[in-house]
Amino acid sequence: MKPINVGLLGIGTVGGGTWEVLRRNAHEIQRRAGRAIGITRVADKALARARGIVGAKAKLTADAREVTRAKDIDIVIELIGGTGIARELVLDAIAHGKHVVTANKALLAHHGNEIFAAAQKKGVMVAFEAAVAGGVPIIKALREGLSANRIEWIAGIINGTSNFILSEMRDKGLDFATVLAEAQRLGYAEADPTFDVEGVDAAHKLTILSALAFGIPMQFKKAYTEGITRLTRADIAYAEELGYRIKLLGITKRTAKGIELRVHPTLVPARRLIANVEGVMNAILINGDAVGPTLYYGAGAGSLPTASAVVADLVDVTRLITADPGHRVPHLAFQPDQLSDTKVLPIGEVETSYYFRLRVLDRPGVLADITRILAQGSISIDAMVQKEPGAGQKQVDIVLLTHRALEKNVDAALKKIEKLRTVVGKVTRIRLEELL
Amino acid sequence: MKPINVGLLGIGTVGGGTWEVLRRNAHEIQRRAGRAIGITRVADKALARARGIVGAKAKLTADAREVTRAKDIDIVIELIGGTGIARELVLDAIAHGKHVVTANKALLAHHGNEIFAAAQKKGVMVAFEAAVAGGVPIIKALREGLSANRIEWIAGIINGTSNFILSEMRDKGLDFATVLAEAQRLGYAEADPTFDVEGVDAAHKLTILSALAFGIPMQFKKAYTEGITRLTRADIAYAEELGYRIKLLGITKRTAKGIELRVHPTLVPARRLIANVEGVMNAILINGDAVGPTLYYGAGAGSLPTASAVVADLVDVTRLITADPGHRVPHLAFQPDQLSDTKVLPIGEVETSYYFRLRVLDRPGVLADITRILAQGSISIDAMVQKEPGAGQKQVDIVLLTHRALEKNVDAALKKIEKLRTVVGKVTRIRLEELL
Repeated sequence: MKPINVGLLGIGTVGGGTWEVLRRNAHEIQRRAGRAIGITRVADKALARARGIVGAKAKLTADAREVTRAKDIDIVIELIGGTGIARELVLDAIAHGKHVVTANKALLAHHGNEIFAAAQKKGVMVAFEAAVAGGVPIIKALREGLSANRIEWIAGIINGTSNFILSEMRDKGLDFATVLAEAQRLGYAEADPTFDVEGVDAAHKLTILSALAFGIPMQFKKAYTEGITRLTRADIAYAEELGYRIKLLGITKRTAKGIELRVHPTLVPARRLIANVEGVMNAILINGDAVGPTLYYGAGAGSLPTASAVVADLVDVTRLITADPGHRVPHLAFQPDQLSDTKVLPIGEVETSYYFRLRVLDRPGVLADITRILAQGSISIDAMVQKEPGAGQKQVDIVLLTHRALEKNVDAALKKIEKLRTVVGKVTRIRLEELL
Repeated sequence: MKPINVGLLGIGTVGGGTWEVLRRNAHEIQRRAGRAIGITRVADKALARARGIVGAKAKLTADAREVTRAKDIDIVIELIGGTGIARELVLDAIAHGKHVVTANKALLAHHGNEIFAAAQKKGVMVAFEAAVAGGVPIIKALREGLSANRIEWIAGIINGTSNFILSEMRDKGLDFATVLAEAQRLGYAEADPTFDVEGVDAAHKLTILSALAFGIPMQFKKAYTEGITRLTRADIAYAEELGYRIKLLGITKRTAKGIELRVHPTLVPARRLIANVEGVMNAILINGDAVGPTLYYGAGAGSLPTASAVVADLVDVTRLITADPGHRVPHLAFQPDQLSDTKVLPIGEVETSYYFRLRVLDRPGVLADITRILAQGSISIDAMVQKEPGAGQKQVDIVLLTHRALEKNVDAALKKIEKLRTVVGKVTRIRLEELL
């Protein structure tokens, strides 16, 4: 069979890895795919650097549209990133009948609906395994491997930078700022780490997983996003004492009221496998009605792991090129005319358990006031730890774990509690999931 | 599109689960697959019981060939088990142009080469996601998700019964026989548990994974198989002290000398995720040259989890029915004319690390003799623990961990050590893998 010609947009970290994997494993890949797959055109603004990588083995240009429109190209890989020019080029490639492979989660979370509609209309595929959890084949597992299931919920560590920071904070007893600086030094965090540590990157990925799990359109704007910047060593240590670890989780869940879509620090029982995922690694727990809980773990970023997913997509697209388009795996797991309009719930409507940490004056009756307010909000207490005051101290920390409660009730109760004269400062509130 | 008609051979535990999942999630599955998939014919010897399940919703027969030869059937599911009649029926279905879905690992490990060759010749697919690790989509991950990689090695907990037994032995400090009896009472172990506890079932599954990973034919007869029946509480406790857990692992590895294919109890560092997989759950660690280590976890058996994999295969086969056969995913991951003849190594040629436990007389010079014999066999010691003798005892336990060594050298050295007059009884030898 004739070789598949691939055009590559952007030969940076992941693009360079993709070039490398396709060359190094060319024989292995051809043995699997049944035909050769090679990058024959590359577009990159940094021409000299790109030339250093590809040599004379591919046609090089600074004009990406020479690639998206080339007659001899079957599949275009978009590795430029961002939601501006990347969107234009992906749509241009589709308009010119090219299949597209992309690792761009921001692009899909924001413009996925538009891009998939265009691809559907044109009869081409847009593959995006690399957009979530790097080399872990999570899109494939969710969309194909678990296709027999009604997916109930997903909980994932899908941002390696913040997981690295939380691992280090716990392991070494350091605070957020210190570890962030270390992560930046090691290259695990960007100079501007906002997207990673504020949960935005995780929310992009979760938006994609949620759409695939429940057959809903991409709805990034409805995702609740809270990062790890306000977590303290004290909370991590208290959680540990109670048998929990704090992880930045992306959680999406099907409930009778609608779909939950939220990224936030979460207490998870320490004995759960996902609680033991350390460093920059990713892991995603998926609960299906037939299969029960399944977990997928691996490197969520990096040149070669992400390239592994990009190249697997090339093989997949190659395989399905001759399939009846009606039989290809649908972009969002469900047939485009079968998407659901189930609404995404605002965070106030979410039900979960909570960890509260309060600083109170060491006086009789303080606890009675607090528990009365919680009870009024239908919030019941699962466990409580009161720290003994240090010698001469008049303030003590109280840590409470609650049973499941409605977030808006929790908001209201905490507001009242914070007004008590015996409560000092703000209440720290971290959500808690048993993941069962 | 017209519905896909499925014939089911055997409506026992997994067959009943498959019937249930297809009915319960019919709408969800059709939303994904783009067409209805339904079981229209069922063959089972226990006609009355089968009638109780399917009612009037499918044609029922005690003659399986009425299903494998029915003109109105597109896909045949084989859930009879064993390697006798199941083989004949699968070959009969293929001969009649049916695609086949099976959960039968014994059948594939023994007769996979014959079955895939027949399917290839006839242009039909044989799908077998359910044959390894139940509902965990491990076949798909290995064959498609990691298709960009040169797979380096796989290490998996792929027998839930023996993992349950090891978990309980460690957790409760019980011995093998006691826990086996408990597992039998709970229905986690069969009345005749040989296949599970002697590693045969795991070796069937490992044979399949090895073929998919390295593009070699199924070679079950070359697998080295050692079960968990001789493990003692003492070894589990000593391993724990040294920072290790003992798991029954299936390990297959590509080396310069050939392919390792072995099932045996294995010490694994306790901090590894796979060391923390407890109870009847399965987990498979795959190391690819691009992606690095990835892990897949979930229920490895049971009615609905296994049915999840069977039904996912139905959806996959449905999708690829119209694809150019040359573009379908090859049965053994690699194109049939691209299989490799790399040989499977006998266990003597395997290189790994070891845990030894010896009982010795508490006398000067004992250790010198032992370490001299090991050194002569190029076996170097990584760690050693000598247990203090109890009051009045003249024998002590010595536990040694070695660096990597050649198994045949270890065999020879242990034979010499066991002949020392200061060494009492046999040396216990358990292999050890760092899994890095």
